[in-house]
Amino acid sequence: MAHFNLLQEKILKDGVIKSGNVLKVDSFLNHQIDVPFISELGKEFYSLFSEKKIDKVLTIESSGIGIACLTAIHFGVPVVFAKKSAGSNMDKEMYMTEVMSYTHNRMNHVVVSKKYIKQGEHILILDDFLANGCAIRGLIDLVLQAGGIVEGIGICIEKGFQGGGDALREDGYPIKSLAIIEKMDADTGTITFREGDKS
Amino acid sequence: MAHFNLLQEKILKDGVIKSGNVLKVDSFLNHQIDVPFISELGKEFYSLFSEKKIDKVLTIESSGIGIACLTAIHFGVPVVFAKKSAGSNMDKEMYMTEVMSYTHNRMNHVVVSKKYIKQGEHILILDDFLANGCAIRGLIDLVLQAGGIVEGIGICIEKGFQGGGDALREDGYPIKSLAIIEKMDADTGTITFREGDKS
Repeated sequence: MAHFNLLQEKILKDGVIKSGNVLKVDSFLNHQIDVPFISELGKEFYSLFSEKKIDKVLTIESSGIGIACLTAIHFGVPVVFAKKSAGSNMDKEMYMTEVMSYTHNRMNHVVVSKKYIKQGEHILILDDFLANGCAIRGLIDLVLQAGGIVEGIGICIEKGFQGGGDALREDGYPIKSLAIIEKMDADTGTITFREGDKS
Repeated sequence: MAHFNLLQEKILKDGVIKSGNVLKVDSFLNHQIDVPFISELGKEFYSLFSEKKIDKVLTIESSGIGIACLTAIHFGVPVVFAKKSAGSNMDKEMYMTEVMSYTHNRMNHVVVSKKYIKQGEHILILDDFLANGCAIRGLIDLVLQAGGIVEGIGICIEKGFQGGGDALREDGYPIKSLAIIEKMDADTGTITFREGDKS
């Protein structure tokens, strides 16, 4: 009988599968944030990366901010969140990359101030979802532009069948996903997780 | 001699005054989030509102999410963050309000799923900034549409001279701001806080 971890159990209980391989977890992760639960995931990320030197957690607005803050609290470090467009209050001095948003079907400019990622800083990248890997590759690009070091990449839910995570693993990135979905079926409502997650 | 609280001291140390009454606090509050420090502000909000029954914390993306999560953890309740536009993954069933964004000089549609604010729920509204009060009035509108109860409004930095906070106080809302700026001067770099804050 399969043994499910904390997040897998939550997905099976509260996730809703929609057609088009959409998994809705907005009841606990990315609209409503179940803070006591997400804080447990933060502890899990801390234990997965606690042997690394982590100076900062980097994520992207908006839905990465909750898990980033609730993880960074255990490391005792700041969070930096990359922004999706440059408001008039933004610094002129920023690193910029482009990320395709399939949700909104457009290219987003994603920026981070040069003041908040510095040469030689050890960065843990965190996000709520990984599918094709575009957002994570954008964040990696920002860290590398700054001369920082990607110490780890932590993902709550990876859609394994979209291949973005495995491509990053093949490129040698230390990526850990708390739940990797291999298959999901909107008609039957079934979800199959990858065995032996977290690597 | 003036006594400054935790946030006032941090603003005096790390805030940058720009012309046009802009206070940049993106080194610790709304681009980089100084998580250990913001967690202390979360404790302060908890002590200010701990006598109220709070079912949920409501904020608005993106810069309210950090302080909301780092406060909700002390209450042991979820955060709901209102979203600025309806992506294709959003529920059709949402409450909607309009908020003027002076940063981007446009009206934003702000939405929250009907599933995540329910009739009779006791809501603590939190945000990083309050100036003219448009965003907070939008959040209040969402709570009232849902039949919820606004138990409190917590603000990190209120620009007292823009009047939005005092107008809300006159309307009877229980609003507490950790720092109220009465005056700031980009030329001299001076900031004057309201005496006897938090009311």
